[in-house]
Amino acid sequence: MIWVQRQITFAQRPRGFHLVTREVVEALPELRELRVGVLSLAIQHTSASLALNENASPDVRRDFEAWFDEAVPERASYWTHTLEGDDDMPAHVKAALLGPTLTLPVSNGRLALGTWQGIYLCEHRDRGGPRAVVATAWGEAAG
Amino acid sequence: MIWVQRQITFAQRPRGFHLVTREVVEALPELRELRVGVLSLAIQHTSASLALNENASPDVRRDFEAWFDEAVPERASYWTHTLEGDDDMPAHVKAALLGPTLTLPVSNGRLALGTWQGIYLCEHRDRGGPRAVVATAWGEAAG
Amino acid sequence: MIWVQRQITFAQRPRGFHLVTREVVEALPELRELRVGVLSLAIQHTSASLALNENASPDVRRDFEAWFDEAVPERASYWTHTLEGDDDMPAHVKAALLGPTLTLPVSNGRLALGTWQGIYLCEHRDRGGPRAVVATAWGEAAG
Repeated sequence: MIWVQRQITFAQRPRGFHLVTREVVEALPELRELRVGVLSLAIQHTSASLALNENASPDVRRDFEAWFDEAVPERASYWTHTLEGDDDMPAHVKAALLGPTLTLPVSNGRLALGTWQGIYLCEHRDRGGPRAVVATAWGEAAG
Repeated sequence: MIWVQRQITFAQRPRGFHLVTREVVEALPELRELRVGVLSLAIQHTSASLALNENASPDVRRDFEAWFDEAVPERASYWTHTLEGDDDMPAHVKAALLGPTLTLPVSNGRLALGTWQGIYLCEHRDRGGPRAVVATAWGEAAG
Repeated sequence: MIWVQRQITFAQRPRGFHLVTREVVEALPELRELRVGVLSLAIQHTSASLALNENASPDVRRDFEAWFDEAVPERASYWTHTLEGDDDMPAHVKAALLGPTLTLPVSNGRLALGTWQGIYLCEHRDRGGPRAVVATAWGEAAG
Protein backbone atom coordinates (compact mmCIF):
# COMPACT_ATOMS: atom_id res chain seq x y z
CA MET A 1 0.00 0.00 0.00
CA ILE A 2 1.16 3.49 -0.87
CA TRP A 3 -0.26 6.54 0.90
CA VAL A 4 0.39 10.13 -0.15
CA GLN A 5 -1.18 13.19 1.43
CA ARG A 6 -0.30 16.73 0.53
CA GLN A 7 -1.80 20.20 0.54
CA ILE A 8 -1.91 21.91 -2.85
CA THR A 9 -2.27 25.68 -2.81
CA PHE A 10 -3.80 27.32 -5.86
CA ALA A 11 -2.94 30.97 -6.46
CA GLN A 12 -5.89 33.37 -6.39
CA ARG A 13 -7.97 33.22 -9.52
CA PRO A 14 -10.79 35.44 -10.77
CA ARG A 15 -14.37 34.40 -10.12
CA GLY A 16 -15.23 31.63 -12.55
CA PHE A 17 -14.37 28.08 -13.53
CA HIS A 18 -10.70 27.18 -13.99
CA LEU A 19 -9.05 24.09 -15.43
CA VAL A 20 -6.39 22.78 -13.01
CA THR A 21 -5.81 19.15 -14.06
CA ARG A 22 -2.18 19.69 -14.97
CA GLU A 23 -1.44 21.54 -11.75
CA VAL A 24 -2.97 18.71 -9.71
CA VAL A 25 -1.06 15.97 -11.53
CA GLU A 26 2.25 17.84 -11.33
CA ALA A 27 1.83 18.26 -7.58
CA LEU A 28 1.48 14.48 -7.19
CA PRO A 29 4.35 12.70 -8.95
CA GLU A 30 3.68 9.64 -6.74
CA LEU A 31 0.54 8.86 -8.76
CA ARG A 32 2.92 7.28 -11.30
CA GLU A 33 3.81 4.60 -8.77
CA LEU A 34 0.23 3.37 -8.36
CA ARG A 35 -0.89 0.40 -10.39
CA VAL A 36 -4.41 0.79 -9.09
CA GLY A 37 -5.63 3.37 -6.63
CA VAL A 38 -7.66 6.45 -5.87
CA LEU A 39 -7.01 10.17 -5.62
CA SER A 40 -9.28 12.11 -3.32
CA LEU A 41 -9.30 15.91 -3.43
CA ALA A 42 -10.96 18.11 -0.80
CA ILE A 43 -11.04 21.88 -0.94
CA GLN A 44 -10.78 23.50 2.50
CA HIS A 45 -13.10 26.42 1.77
CA THR A 46 -16.84 27.03 1.75
CA SER A 47 -17.13 29.46 -1.17
CA ALA A 48 -15.09 27.59 -3.79
CA SER A 49 -15.57 24.05 -5.08
CA LEU A 50 -14.22 21.28 -7.28
CA ALA A 51 -15.85 19.79 -10.36
CA LEU A 52 -14.99 17.52 -13.25
CA ASN A 53 -16.15 18.62 -16.69
CA GLU A 54 -15.27 19.55 -20.25
CA ASN A 55 -11.58 20.31 -20.68
CA ALA A 56 -11.51 21.77 -24.20
CA SER A 57 -13.72 24.82 -24.78
CA PRO A 58 -13.30 27.91 -22.60
CA ASP A 59 -16.87 28.85 -23.51
CA VAL A 60 -18.16 25.84 -21.57
CA ARG A 61 -16.53 27.22 -18.44
CA ARG A 62 -17.91 30.69 -19.21
CA ASP A 63 -21.40 29.23 -19.58
CA PHE A 64 -21.04 27.44 -16.25
CA GLU A 65 -20.46 30.82 -14.64
CA ALA A 66 -23.45 32.28 -16.49
CA TRP A 67 -25.81 29.52 -15.38
CA PHE A 68 -24.72 29.60 -11.75
CA ASP A 69 -25.04 33.39 -11.59
CA GLU A 70 -28.57 33.10 -12.95
CA ALA A 71 -29.59 30.19 -10.72
CA VAL A 72 -28.10 31.55 -7.49
CA PRO A 73 -28.60 35.30 -7.83
CA GLU A 74 -26.92 37.98 -5.75
CA ARG A 75 -29.13 40.38 -3.80
CA ALA A 76 -32.12 38.02 -3.83
CA SER A 77 -34.76 38.96 -1.27
CA TYR A 78 -34.38 35.69 0.67
CA TRP A 79 -30.71 36.19 1.64
CA THR A 80 -30.19 37.20 5.27
CA HIS A 81 -26.45 36.47 5.51
CA THR A 82 -25.31 39.58 3.62
CA LEU A 83 -22.63 41.00 5.91
CA GLU A 84 -19.70 39.57 3.96
CA GLY A 85 -20.72 40.94 0.56
CA ASP A 86 -23.27 40.27 -2.17
CA ASP A 87 -21.18 37.43 -3.58
CA ASP A 88 -20.76 35.57 -0.28
CA MET A 89 -23.99 33.68 0.35
CA PRO A 90 -24.47 32.75 -3.34
CA ALA A 91 -20.88 31.42 -3.23
CA HIS A 92 -21.76 29.11 -0.33
CA VAL A 93 -24.75 27.68 -2.20
CA LYS A 94 -22.84 27.25 -5.47
CA ALA A 95 -20.01 25.54 -3.58
CA ALA A 96 -22.42 23.07 -1.98
CA LEU A 97 -24.16 22.33 -5.29
CA LEU A 98 -20.89 21.43 -7.01
CA GLY A 99 -19.34 19.96 -3.91
CA PRO A 100 -16.02 20.29 -2.08
CA THR A 101 -14.53 16.93 -3.06
CA LEU A 102 -13.61 14.73 -6.02
CA THR A 103 -12.76 11.04 -5.71
CA LEU A 104 -10.99 9.87 -8.86
CA PRO A 105 -9.67 6.49 -10.01
CA VAL A 106 -5.96 5.98 -10.67
CA SER A 107 -4.95 3.30 -13.14
CA ASN A 108 -1.42 2.33 -14.19
CA GLY A 109 0.10 5.49 -12.81
CA ARG A 110 -2.41 7.94 -14.27
CA LEU A 111 -5.75 9.50 -13.41
CA ALA A 112 -8.33 7.39 -15.23
CA LEU A 113 -10.34 10.30 -16.61
CA GLY A 114 -12.34 10.39 -19.82
CA THR A 115 -10.80 12.09 -22.85
CA TRP A 116 -12.82 15.27 -22.35
CA GLN A 117 -12.71 15.44 -18.58
CA GLY A 118 -10.70 18.00 -16.67
CA ILE A 119 -10.60 19.09 -13.03
CA TYR A 120 -12.20 22.49 -12.38
CA LEU A 121 -11.35 24.79 -9.53
CA CYS A 122 -14.61 26.74 -9.20
CA GLU A 123 -14.07 30.16 -7.65
CA HIS A 124 -17.39 31.60 -6.53
CA ARG A 125 -16.13 34.78 -4.87
CA ASP A 126 -14.98 37.99 -6.52
CA ARG A 127 -11.74 37.96 -4.55
CA GLY A 128 -11.43 34.50 -3.01
CA GLY A 129 -7.71 34.55 -2.29
CA PRO A 130 -5.51 31.47 -2.62
CA ARG A 131 -7.32 28.13 -2.22
CA ALA A 132 -6.01 25.08 -0.37
CA VAL A 133 -6.87 21.53 -1.46
CA VAL A 134 -5.92 18.43 0.50
CA ALA A 135 -4.93 15.66 -1.90
CA THR A 136 -4.90 12.10 -0.57
CA ALA A 137 -3.88 9.19 -2.80
CA TRP A 138 -3.68 5.54 -1.88
CA GLY A 139 -3.33 2.28 -3.75
CA GLU A 140 -1.28 -0.68 -4.73
CA ALA A 141 2.26 -0.13 -5.96
CA ALA A 142 3.11 -0.97 -9.54
CA GLY A 143 5.05 -4.24 -9.82
CA MET B 1 -4.09 -0.64 7.62
CA ILE B 2 -6.94 0.27 9.92
CA TRP B 3 -10.56 -0.18 8.87
CA VAL B 4 -13.55 1.10 10.82
CA GLN B 5 -17.16 0.89 9.71
CA ARG B 6 -20.09 1.94 11.80
CA GLN B 7 -23.64 3.18 11.42
CA ILE B 8 -24.35 6.53 13.03
CA THR B 9 -27.99 7.32 13.73
CA PHE B 10 -28.99 10.95 13.93
CA ALA B 11 -32.12 11.78 15.92
CA GLN B 12 -34.96 13.37 13.93
CA ARG B 13 -34.34 17.01 13.15
CA PRO B 14 -36.63 19.68 11.71
CA ARG B 15 -36.48 20.40 8.01
CA GLY B 16 -33.35 22.43 7.34
CA PHE B 17 -29.57 22.34 7.49
CA HIS B 18 -27.92 21.06 10.68
CA LEU B 19 -24.32 21.13 11.80
CA VAL B 20 -23.24 17.63 12.94
CA THR B 21 -19.43 17.70 12.82
CA ARG B 22 -19.00 17.08 16.53
CA GLU B 23 -21.51 14.22 16.54
CA VAL B 24 -19.67 12.54 13.67
CA VAL B 25 -16.23 12.89 15.26
CA GLU B 26 -17.45 11.67 18.65
CA ALA B 27 -18.94 8.57 17.05
CA LEU B 28 -15.54 7.70 15.56
CA PRO B 29 -12.85 7.76 18.24
CA GLU B 30 -10.68 5.54 16.00
CA LEU B 31 -9.98 8.51 13.72
CA ARG B 32 -7.36 9.51 16.30
CA GLU B 33 -5.34 6.41 15.44
CA LEU B 34 -4.95 7.32 11.77
CA ARG B 35 -1.78 9.08 10.68
CA VAL B 36 -3.17 9.45 7.18
CA GLY B 37 -6.50 8.21 5.92
CA VAL B 38 -9.99 8.91 4.69
CA LEU B 39 -13.46 9.07 6.23
CA SER B 40 -16.33 8.30 3.91
CA LEU B 41 -19.89 9.08 5.00
CA ALA B 42 -22.98 7.81 3.17
CA ILE B 43 -26.53 8.63 4.19
CA GLN B 44 -28.94 5.74 3.65
CA HIS B 45 -31.91 7.86 2.64
CA THR B 46 -33.18 9.54 -0.50
CA SER B 47 -34.74 12.69 0.96
CA ALA B 48 -31.88 13.85 3.20
CA SER B 49 -28.29 14.59 2.26
CA LEU B 50 -24.82 15.49 3.49
CA ALA B 51 -22.88 18.67 2.73
CA LEU B 52 -19.79 20.49 3.91
CA ASN B 53 -20.12 24.23 4.41
CA GLU B 54 -19.86 27.21 6.73
CA ASN B 55 -19.78 26.20 10.39
CA ALA B 56 -20.19 29.57 12.11
CA SER B 57 -23.31 31.55 11.21
CA PRO B 58 -26.74 29.98 11.67
CA ASP B 59 -28.06 32.43 9.06
CA VAL B 60 -25.96 30.70 6.38
CA ARG B 61 -27.83 27.49 7.11
CA ARG B 62 -31.14 29.34 7.11
CA ASP B 63 -30.31 30.87 3.72
CA PHE B 64 -29.47 27.42 2.35
CA GLU B 65 -32.99 26.34 3.24
CA ALA B 66 -34.41 29.49 1.63
CA TRP B 67 -32.54 28.99 -1.63
CA PHE B 68 -33.41 25.32 -1.94
CA ASP B 69 -37.08 25.98 -1.22
CA GLU B 70 -37.10 28.60 -3.95
CA ALA B 71 -35.15 26.53 -6.49
CA VAL B 72 -37.04 23.26 -5.95
CA PRO B 73 -40.57 24.42 -5.22
CA GLU B 74 -43.38 22.35 -3.74
CA ARG B 75 -46.56 21.93 -5.75
CA ALA B 76 -44.87 22.80 -9.06
CA SER B 77 -46.93 21.78 -12.07
CA TYR B 78 -44.32 19.31 -13.33
CA TRP B 79 -44.38 17.01 -10.29
CA THR B 80 -46.23 13.74 -10.84
CA HIS B 81 -44.89 11.84 -7.80
CA THR B 82 -47.12 13.58 -5.24
CA LEU B 83 -48.59 10.68 -3.28
CA GLU B 84 -46.14 10.95 -0.37
CA GLY B 85 -46.71 14.64 0.32
CA ASP B 86 -45.81 18.02 -1.14
CA ASP B 87 -42.37 17.92 0.43
CA ASP B 88 -41.42 14.47 -0.89
CA MET B 89 -40.42 14.93 -4.53
CA PRO B 90 -38.61 18.25 -3.88
CA ALA B 91 -36.72 16.43 -1.10
CA HIS B 92 -35.48 13.80 -3.57
CA VAL B 93 -34.18 16.47 -5.95
CA LYS B 94 -32.55 18.52 -3.17
CA ALA B 95 -30.91 15.36 -1.82
CA ALA B 96 -29.46 14.50 -5.24
CA LEU B 97 -28.18 18.05 -5.78
CA LEU B 98 -26.27 18.07 -2.50
CA GLY B 99 -25.42 14.41 -2.66
CA PRO B 100 -25.64 11.45 -0.27
CA THR B 101 -21.92 11.11 0.49
CA LEU B 102 -18.87 12.98 1.76
CA THR B 103 -15.30 11.70 1.39
CA LEU B 104 -13.02 13.57 3.77
CA PRO B 105 -9.28 13.46 4.42
CA VAL B 106 -7.93 12.41 7.81
CA SER B 107 -4.54 13.72 8.86
CA ASN B 108 -2.69 13.04 12.11
CA GLY B 109 -5.77 11.71 13.82
CA ARG B 110 -8.14 14.50 12.81
CA LEU B 111 -10.49 15.39 9.97
CA ALA B 112 -8.46 17.71 7.72
CA LEU B 113 -11.21 20.30 7.26
CA GLY B 114 -10.80 24.00 6.63
CA THR B 115 -11.27 26.36 9.58
CA TRP B 116 -14.78 27.31 8.48
CA GLN B 117 -15.97 23.92 7.27
CA GLY B 118 -18.52 21.84 9.09
CA ILE B 119 -20.54 18.74 8.18
CA TYR B 120 -24.21 19.43 7.47
CA LEU B 121 -27.00 16.93 7.83
CA CYS B 122 -29.53 18.33 5.35
CA GLU B 123 -33.09 17.33 6.21
CA HIS B 124 -35.37 17.95 3.25
CA ARG B 125 -38.60 16.51 4.66
CA ASP B 126 -40.97 18.07 7.15
CA ARG B 127 -40.85 14.95 9.32
CA GLY B 128 -37.94 12.86 8.09
CA GLY B 129 -37.49 10.69 11.15
CA PRO B 130 -34.08 9.51 12.39
CA ARG B 131 -31.40 9.34 9.70
CA ALA B 132 -28.78 6.60 9.34
CA VAL B 133 -25.29 7.30 8.00
CA VAL B 134 -22.72 4.60 7.28
CA ALA B 135 -19.25 5.84 8.25
CA THR B 136 -16.26 4.02 6.82
CA ALA B 137 -12.72 5.07 7.73
CA TRP B 138 -9.48 3.54 6.55
CA GLY B 139 -5.84 4.50 6.63
CA GLU B 140 -2.38 4.01 7.99
CA ALA B 141 -1.92 3.73 11.72
CA ALA B 142 0.00 6.40 13.55
CA GLY B 143 3.52 5.23 14.44
CA MET C 1 -6.29 -5.86 1.05
CA ILE C 2 -8.32 -6.58 -2.05
CA TRP C 3 -8.27 -4.19 -5.02
CA VAL C 4 -10.56 -4.48 -8.02
CA GLN C 5 -10.71 -2.02 -10.90
CA ARG C 6 -12.83 -2.49 -13.97
CA GLN C 7 -14.55 -0.46 -16.66
CA ILE C 8 -18.28 -1.01 -16.93
CA THR C 9 -19.90 0.02 -20.22
CA PHE C 10 -23.57 0.91 -20.18
CA ALA C 11 -25.47 0.57 -23.46
CA GLN C 12 -26.95 3.80 -24.83
CA ARG C 13 -30.07 4.87 -23.00
CA PRO C 14 -32.63 7.56 -23.76
CA ARG C 15 -32.26 10.95 -22.10
CA GLY C 16 -33.42 10.60 -18.51
CA PHE C 17 -32.67 8.89 -15.22
CA HIS C 18 -32.04 5.14 -15.24
CA LEU C 19 -31.73 2.63 -12.42
CA VAL C 20 -28.53 0.56 -12.84
CA THR C 21 -27.85 -0.91 -9.38
CA ARG C 22 -28.20 -4.50 -10.51
CA GLU C 23 -25.97 -3.97 -13.54
CA VAL C 24 -23.26 -2.48 -11.32
CA VAL C 25 -23.41 -5.26 -8.74
CA GLU C 26 -23.39 -8.00 -11.38
CA ALA C 27 -20.30 -6.49 -13.00
CA LEU C 28 -18.46 -6.72 -9.68
CA PRO C 29 -18.74 -10.23 -8.22
CA GLU C 30 -15.63 -9.51 -6.11
CA LEU C 31 -17.69 -7.26 -3.84
CA ARG C 32 -18.86 -10.48 -2.15
CA GLU C 33 -15.32 -11.10 -0.92
CA LEU C 34 -15.10 -7.81 1.01
CA ARG C 35 -15.89 -7.85 4.70
CA VAL C 36 -15.54 -4.08 4.83
CA GLY C 37 -14.64 -1.78 1.97
CA VAL C 38 -15.61 0.88 -0.50
CA LEU C 39 -16.83 0.98 -4.09
CA SER C 40 -16.00 4.11 -6.03
CA LEU C 41 -17.68 4.76 -9.38
CA ALA C 42 -16.56 7.45 -11.83
CA ILE C 43 -18.28 8.15 -15.13
CA GLN C 44 -15.84 9.14 -17.87
CA HIS C 45 -18.13 11.64 -19.58
CA THR C 46 -19.08 15.28 -19.10
CA SER C 47 -22.74 15.16 -20.15
CA ALA C 48 -23.92 12.19 -18.09
CA SER C 49 -23.70 11.66 -14.35
CA LEU C 50 -24.26 9.28 -11.45
CA ALA C 51 -26.67 9.71 -8.57
CA LEU C 52 -28.15 7.69 -5.72
CA ASN C 53 -31.87 8.04 -5.17
CA GLU C 54 -35.28 6.39 -4.95
CA ASN C 55 -35.30 2.90 -6.46
CA ALA C 56 -39.02 2.14 -6.53
CA SER C 57 -41.22 4.58 -8.43
CA PRO C 58 -40.49 5.32 -12.08
CA ASP C 59 -42.34 8.63 -11.64
CA VAL C 60 -39.59 9.84 -9.29
CA ARG C 61 -37.09 9.40 -12.09
CA ARG C 62 -39.46 11.11 -14.54
CA ASP C 63 -39.83 14.06 -12.15
CA PHE C 64 -36.06 14.32 -11.86
CA GLU C 65 -35.93 14.81 -15.62
CA ALA C 66 -38.73 17.39 -15.44
CA TRP C 67 -37.02 19.44 -12.73
CA PHE C 68 -33.63 19.42 -14.41
CA ASP C 69 -35.13 20.43 -17.76
CA GLU C 70 -36.86 23.33 -16.06
CA ALA C 71 -33.86 24.43 -13.98
CA VAL C 72 -31.26 24.14 -16.75
CA PRO C 73 -33.22 25.19 -19.85
CA GLU C 74 -32.17 24.65 -23.45
CA ARG C 75 -31.81 27.70 -25.69
CA ALA C 76 -31.43 30.11 -22.75
CA SER C 77 -30.03 33.47 -23.79
CA TYR C 78 -26.87 33.08 -21.69
CA TRP C 79 -25.53 29.97 -23.47
CA THR C 80 -22.63 30.67 -25.82
CA HIS C 81 -21.42 27.07 -26.27
CA THR C 82 -24.18 26.01 -28.67
CA LEU C 83 -22.23 24.38 -31.50
CA GLU C 84 -22.84 20.81 -30.31
CA GLY C 85 -26.62 21.08 -30.04
CA ASP C 86 -29.24 22.59 -27.77
CA ASP C 87 -28.95 19.74 -25.31
CA ASP C 88 -25.15 19.92 -24.93
CA MET C 89 -24.42 22.82 -22.60
CA PRO C 90 -27.40 22.08 -20.30
CA ALA C 91 -26.08 18.50 -20.14
CA HIS C 92 -22.70 19.72 -18.87
CA VAL C 93 -24.33 21.76 -16.11
CA LYS C 94 -26.72 18.96 -15.08
CA ALA C 95 -23.80 16.53 -15.01
CA ALA C 96 -21.79 18.82 -12.71
CA LEU C 97 -24.76 19.39 -10.39
CA LEU C 98 -25.31 15.68 -9.86
CA GLY C 99 -21.64 14.82 -10.07
CA PRO C 100 -19.56 12.25 -11.94
CA THR C 101 -18.76 9.97 -8.99
CA LEU C 102 -20.30 7.90 -6.22
CA THR C 103 -18.33 6.53 -3.26
CA LEU C 104 -20.33 3.79 -1.56
CA PRO C 105 -19.70 1.62 1.50
CA VAL C 106 -19.39 -2.15 1.19
CA SER C 107 -20.29 -4.25 4.20
CA ASN C 108 -20.19 -8.05 4.48
CA GLY C 109 -19.97 -8.53 0.75
CA ARG C 110 -22.76 -6.15 -0.22
CA LEU C 111 -23.25 -2.49 -1.03
CA ALA C 112 -24.47 -0.91 2.21
CA LEU C 113 -27.29 1.10 0.65
CA GLY C 114 -30.54 2.13 2.28
CA THR C 115 -33.67 0.13 1.44
CA TRP C 116 -34.91 2.73 -1.02
CA GLN C 117 -31.58 3.71 -2.58
CA GLY C 118 -30.59 2.78 -6.09
CA ILE C 119 -27.80 3.88 -8.41
CA TYR C 120 -28.93 6.16 -11.23
CA LEU C 121 -27.18 6.57 -14.55
CA CYS C 122 -28.30 10.07 -15.52
CA GLU C 123 -28.24 10.61 -19.28
CA HIS C 124 -28.46 14.31 -20.07
CA ARG C 125 -28.07 14.15 -23.85
CA ASP C 126 -30.66 13.16 -26.43
CA ARG C 127 -28.29 10.63 -27.97
CA GLY C 128 -25.42 10.17 -25.54
CA GLY C 129 -24.12 6.87 -26.84
CA PRO C 130 -22.73 4.15 -24.56
CA ARG C 131 -21.33 5.39 -21.25
CA ALA C 132 -18.17 4.12 -19.55
CA VAL C 133 -17.83 4.00 -15.77
CA VAL C 134 -14.60 3.10 -13.95
CA ALA C 135 -15.40 1.00 -10.89
CA THR C 136 -12.73 0.73 -8.20
CA ALA C 137 -13.33 -1.36 -5.08
CA TRP C 138 -10.96 -1.92 -2.20
CA GLY C 139 -11.21 -3.35 1.28
CA GLU C 140 -10.47 -6.08 3.72
CA ALA C 141 -11.13 -9.66 2.73
CA ALA C 142 -13.81 -11.63 4.52
CA GLY C 143 -12.31 -14.08 7.02
